Amino acid sequence: MGEKHVLSHPVDLSVYECDAETLDSSKPDLVVLPATTEELSEVVKLAHASKIPVVARGAGTGLSGGATCVRGGISLVLTRMNRVLFVSPEESCALVQVGATNVSVSQAASRYNLYFAPDPSSQTASTVGGNVAENAGGPHTLKYGMTTHHVLGLKVVLADGQIVTVGGVSRTSNDLDLAGIIVGSEGTLAIATEAVLKLIPKSDKTETLLAYFPSVGQAGQAVSDIVAHGVIPAAMEMIDNLTLNAVEDNSSLGLDRNAAALLIVELDGQASAIAAERKLVESCLVNNGILSSIWARDGEERATIWKARKTAFGALGRIAPHGYVLDGVIPRSKLAEAIDGIEEIGRRNKVTVANVYHAGDGNLHPCMLYHRDDEQEVVRVMRAGKEILLLCVKLGGTLSGEHGIGIEKMEEMPMVFSEDDLELMGKVKQCFDPDLVLNPGKMFPHLKGCGESGRTLLRHKIFSHC
Amino acid sequence: MGEKHVLSHPVDLSVYECDAETLDSSKPDLVVLPATTEELSEVVKLAHASKIPVVARGAGTGLSGGATCVRGGISLVLTRMNRVLFVSPEESCALVQVGATNVSVSQAASRYNLYFAPDPSSQTASTVGGNVAENAGGPHTLKYGMTTHHVLGLKVVLADGQIVTVGGVSRTSNDLDLAGIIVGSEGTLAIATEAVLKLIPKSDKTETLLAYFPSVGQAGQAVSDIVAHGVIPAAMEMIDNLTLNAVEDNSSLGLDRNAAALLIVELDGQASAIAAERKLVESCLVNNGILSSIWARDGEERATIWKARKTAFGALGRIAPHGYVLDGVIPRSKLAEAIDGIEEIGRRNKVTVANVYHAGDGNLHPCMLYHRDDEQEVVRVMRAGKEILLLCVKLGGTLSGEHGIGIEKMEEMPMVFSEDDLELMGKVKQCFDPDLVLNPGKMFPHLKGCGESGRTLLRHKIFSHC
Repeated sequence: MGEKHVLSHPVDLSVYECDAETLDSSKPDLVVLPATTEELSEVVKLAHASKIPVVARGAGTGLSGGATCVRGGISLVLTRMNRVLFVSPEESCALVQVGATNVSVSQAASRYNLYFAPDPSSQTASTVGGNVAENAGGPHTLKYGMTTHHVLGLKVVLADGQIVTVGGVSRTSNDLDLAGIIVGSEGTLAIATEAVLKLIPKSDKTETLLAYFPSVGQAGQAVSDIVAHGVIPAAMEMIDNLTLNAVEDNSSLGLDRNAAALLIVELDGQASAIAAERKLVESCLVNNGILSSIWARDGEERATIWKARKTAFGALGRIAPHGYVLDGVIPRSKLAEAIDGIEEIGRRNKVTVANVYHAGDGNLHPCMLYHRDDEQEVVRVMRAGKEILLLCVKLGGTLSGEHGIGIEKMEEMPMVFSEDDLELMGKVKQCFDPDLVLNPGKMFPHLKGCGESGRTLLRHKIFSHC
Repeated sequence: MGEKHVLSHPVDLSVYECDAETLDSSKPDLVVLPATTEELSEVVKLAHASKIPVVARGAGTGLSGGATCVRGGISLVLTRMNRVLFVSPEESCALVQVGATNVSVSQAASRYNLYFAPDPSSQTASTVGGNVAENAGGPHTLKYGMTTHHVLGLKVVLADGQIVTVGGVSRTSNDLDLAGIIVGSEGTLAIATEAVLKLIPKSDKTETLLAYFPSVGQAGQAVSDIVAHGVIPAAMEMIDNLTLNAVEDNSSLGLDRNAAALLIVELDGQASAIAAERKLVESCLVNNGILSSIWARDGEERATIWKARKTAFGALGRIAPHGYVLDGVIPRSKLAEAIDGIEEIGRRNKVTVANVYHAGDGNLHPCMLYHRDDEQEVVRVMRAGKEILLLCVKLGGTLSGEHGIGIEKMEEMPMVFSEDDLELMGKVKQCFDPDLVLNPGKMFPHLKGCGESGRTLLRHKIFSHC
């Protein structure tokens, strides 16, 4: 594979010491960038023979530390395997190497009027492999589902280097859903190298609404009502007053600074269907005390509306230099209750919390704002973060909607899962990887057999990495 | 649990000796009908301690022998656990005991204008547990996906009797998708006792078309074109000339006996969207030489159209007393090629094959018609069946679209899966069930460790069981 694709100089290694989640980094002992599945398999075989940890990595945009080599070993970087191998319009699918960026799949499919639906905010940089590992979502998960719903098959390298194909292109009921269990397993069961991805037709038309509410509770109720009326918008995204003011300070979009909540509703589909859905959406907004709203008249206005959402985390950098973004999930109907609870937790811990929500599916991204050098504040942030996750769980939700567990939430797993649940997950992990060489120290809090790292796993990040 | 729920009299046992697939039956040694998860767990614990096979069973409508006790042991019948425990309109989901029939879930959800999408033809009888075990489909799988896409979480009993909950109600990216791998595992990994099912809003409107074509190839091309134009109908079902004539003989629906293929296209959604889709569908039909077509004007006409499809297998009983229904899958674009190949296989083996297709997703149900007492014919049927499955695989398809592997296609697994693939599946099976007590002798051709049954697993069935 050539020396230039095997890196061991400390300066080179430092490039791969963390992903977008952690500043508290862990250098790999070696970085290898294979060009083929076979090369990758050879590396894994060598690592397996010596029980050296192997951590697969794409673009490093992950938000839970999934690509960080917390126990050293080999960082296996898949960015050279970045080709969309073919697109089949007949079967509405694409075969891609997992180092391809998310957006490149849709670009390749575009000429057939098809696209790859999962759209994490990182999609211009993040790779299909990373999306598969973390079961990535995005604003349009509400209507189109997560990565797991769009992966038909995978070529994977197992812990011992064996190459296996799981799943395929067809409707199927004839095997264990191994592709399904590998998606979202964060590189702990196997390393995917190629993926067969489902493609879906582009919508005829898209309509995007910006609406303001006097309270988060009313905006949340509007969201629930829209779904209860049988409309599944392509996306329903919300930001709170603190966030919208930060965005306005940053970008001067002309937002209503007095609104308690800004809601974006996007409809897509056939033009005639959207016309009917618009009316239903509007009645749900009016019935919940909307302050004002505007439908984008063209692509430019749509882009402006989305800018309010997409620049949110960056804009929060105006308030404090660092932010720790959570990824809790709650039942949609508990939105108002969750927001009240998060506010109370922030107040009690003296932590400023801005809120950005995938409101339609109850996936919350509270962002705690702080100064990294203020050790006391960092402690309060970590405590508040834990309390917020506990609140989500108590409301019937869970720890992660799309960022994964990684190292970030590993210790919180027992909040959601019983010992028996975790034991079963551990058994499956050990079935795939008995020596715990694949991405050790992640996801499974009770699998600490092979040398738990003592390194601090303090979890925060610089805004520029959001 | 009371004596009346533990059956051991030979007459009682014979009721449970097969499902809808096999006449070649295997009596269980004991039948137990638990009322609760805890009772079921106790039975499994006892069986586990003595390494006695345990085979979960719902209504016994399965078509691959999944519920047959091929190695004796306990038939664990879940039909007493048949309650829909609650429906949550807010979260669009239901919690049900797995012995509930498929249709009872939609009935319970109906008052909230919601329903459970998977609709196997057996839905009035088949249970959620059976649907989960086989990853059941149905005509509307094309648009709405299979059972696995509608199961959010499961309560399961493991091989040692331990009770574990997997999955949940929320958007989630925080654990191994254990619910996903258990769905479709045919009771070989764990026994589900409760399920959290996703519910979806009923459509505003449904429109159903009946169309006739001069050739199966043209009908198949119309199906491909419809999808290529970005329309995903709720269903696209096809029957061939032999089948449509049998239906007409049986029911006098006024079908065109000269057509080579009858195609049903069903659209659902908002009225205005359907109007636009109708035009696209019609143009695809006209461009492929349609003979004639008619849109149902009301519910009664819709029911008549569906009768042509839903009575198809029963009507074939007029041609021969027995039929063996296959469940092959091919890429949608290979439909015409598959049909030609199936015809050739039938001719060469002197076997009459009628064809019923879930055409939209390439799931074929060739039905071989024969007399069970004609031993030579049975041999030819079995050979033709194997050749047809091989054809499907060669065309890039697979062995089962919705009926599962069971005992029926276990020996064909190596057609699709390499030794390495099967080894990995076997490892996962043994991780969940190291002693191979859960539904042994199914799905995994290479796991023959614990006393392969010598019983003949001849596979055919009486029409009345279709």
